[in-house]
Amino acid sequence: MTHPPISSPDNPLIKEYLRLKRSRKYRRSAGKLAVEGPNLLEQALAAGLLPEAVIYTVDYGCGKGAPLLSALPGSVKQVQVSKPLFAKLTATETPQEVAALIPFQEPDHAQFFSVPLSLALFLDRLQDPGNMGTVLRTAAAAGAEAVFYSPGSADPFSAKVLRSTAGAIFNIPVAMAREPLKLLREFKRAGIQIAAAAPSAQHYYWSADFSRPTLFIIGNEKGGISPELSAAADISVNIPLTGGQGSLNAAVAAAVLIFEAIRQRRSGS
Amino acid sequence: MTHPPISSPDNPLIKEYLRLKRSRKYRRSAGKLAVEGPNLLEQALAAGLLPEAVIYTVDYGCGKGAPLLSALPGSVKQVQVSKPLFAKLTATETPQEVAALIPFQEPDHAQFFSVPLSLALFLDRLQDPGNMGTVLRTAAAAGAEAVFYSPGSADPFSAKVLRSTAGAIFNIPVAMAREPLKLLREFKRAGIQIAAAAPSAQHYYWSADFSRPTLFIIGNEKGGISPELSAAADISVNIPLTGGQGSLNAAVAAAVLIFEAIRQRRSGS
Repeated sequence: MTHPPISSPDNPLIKEYLRLKRSRKYRRSAGKLAVEGPNLLEQALAAGLLPEAVIYTVDYGCGKGAPLLSALPGSVKQVQVSKPLFAKLTATETPQEVAALIPFQEPDHAQFFSVPLSLALFLDRLQDPGNMGTVLRTAAAAGAEAVFYSPGSADPFSAKVLRSTAGAIFNIPVAMAREPLKLLREFKRAGIQIAAAAPSAQHYYWSADFSRPTLFIIGNEKGGISPELSAAADISVNIPLTGGQGSLNAAVAAAVLIFEAIRQRRSGS
Repeated sequence: MTHPPISSPDNPLIKEYLRLKRSRKYRRSAGKLAVEGPNLLEQALAAGLLPEAVIYTVDYGCGKGAPLLSALPGSVKQVQVSKPLFAKLTATETPQEVAALIPFQEPDHAQFFSVPLSLALFLDRLQDPGNMGTVLRTAAAAGAEAVFYSPGSADPFSAKVLRSTAGAIFNIPVAMAREPLKLLREFKRAGIQIAAAAPSAQHYYWSADFSRPTLFIIGNEKGGISPELSAAADISVNIPLTGGQGSLNAAVAAAVLIFEAIRQRRSGS
């Protein structure tokens, strides 16, 4: 870098970064993500995504970030900024030192109708960004093939969700379905079993056959799965709680179901 | 209430509340918790805990909190505070309207050595308050009998953990073990199997016998379980991830193991 570090928040790239970070609508229309921190950036690169620009502090550029920056193709804009400006870009407690603008197009859910899916999730108005991130991380680690979400869910591409996924977001396709019922019907037609967890269901989750291609519906934290989508499920299963007391975090319930499918498929029982 | 609402942060009760909220050390020495929000307060009451004092806004006292407040015994101090003062007490985005000082003594871990345990957890330096809360919530809902934690873990009685447990903290004994290895050995002697999840373990978790009394060790988010504690485990099990990629959130890994134990015990296989 021969240029002096940028310190003005009026710099066009800085302004665009902040706009991407703040506005879900702008992220969608621009087809770009605001990605923060060395870990997420490395995961994005490992997944084959190429930033349009990286923004970093001198500590990162001359320190642990030097190998990564020098390995980037010349087409990637590299912008060093002052520490006070960088602190304004990222609002986490621990400073992240590097951020990137990454071209990224959310896949169209319809493209999955023609692909055979064996394990997928549908998130019905999942609200909490931490839950959303944990679900995506679990689904990616377990080898699920896709995660769909309804309008009214947390945005999977917000800064907080990206952080909670620990980078897993780049390893699994995540797509919004504007018409949830239509999506479920389409998958049913393709021979995919639709499964929902419900506290009132008669059968325990381990007695269902999840060795078949299965899509699990995960409901809203407070209200659960909407009646409309529940009615569209092929099976409802019960995750038993002691004396019916307490409740499970939505991401935990998702994990229990996903890993029961993995167990059945791998253990053959 | 015939007294005017308190608006001064110098009121002794307000000062004690804030001290309880901020200092783990003071919580322990005073033997009290700072509990925030109608949900947590209701859960504490349902678990048989009785506040020393409740602090609330006029909206709560004259609104949805009226039945709860009028049902409290006369020994519970009721203190109405101004809205600006209440906003200073609770730092959450949505105002909580009510808070309480609740006498609470953390159980001594040693008292569990003489009780037959069938399902318990040991948290080895679990750092993230959200993870800690989710683990406690899952353990309580699944019917585990106790959760132990090592020094260096997040404080289970901090405001953030209490929130993440969704009140479940009052339904399960949670105790610190200053000498983790001693605790594990004591439980081994009592015939309890010590199980640890490790990515390098040979056996998948479903091939272990968790129908026996079992204590699961849950490791630190970054470093996993310490070598010392790993060596003390009777069995190590593998939660399989696709191609070894990605990782599971610690609370998710805990949930997968706990519910495998529940499955084996209830389904008899």
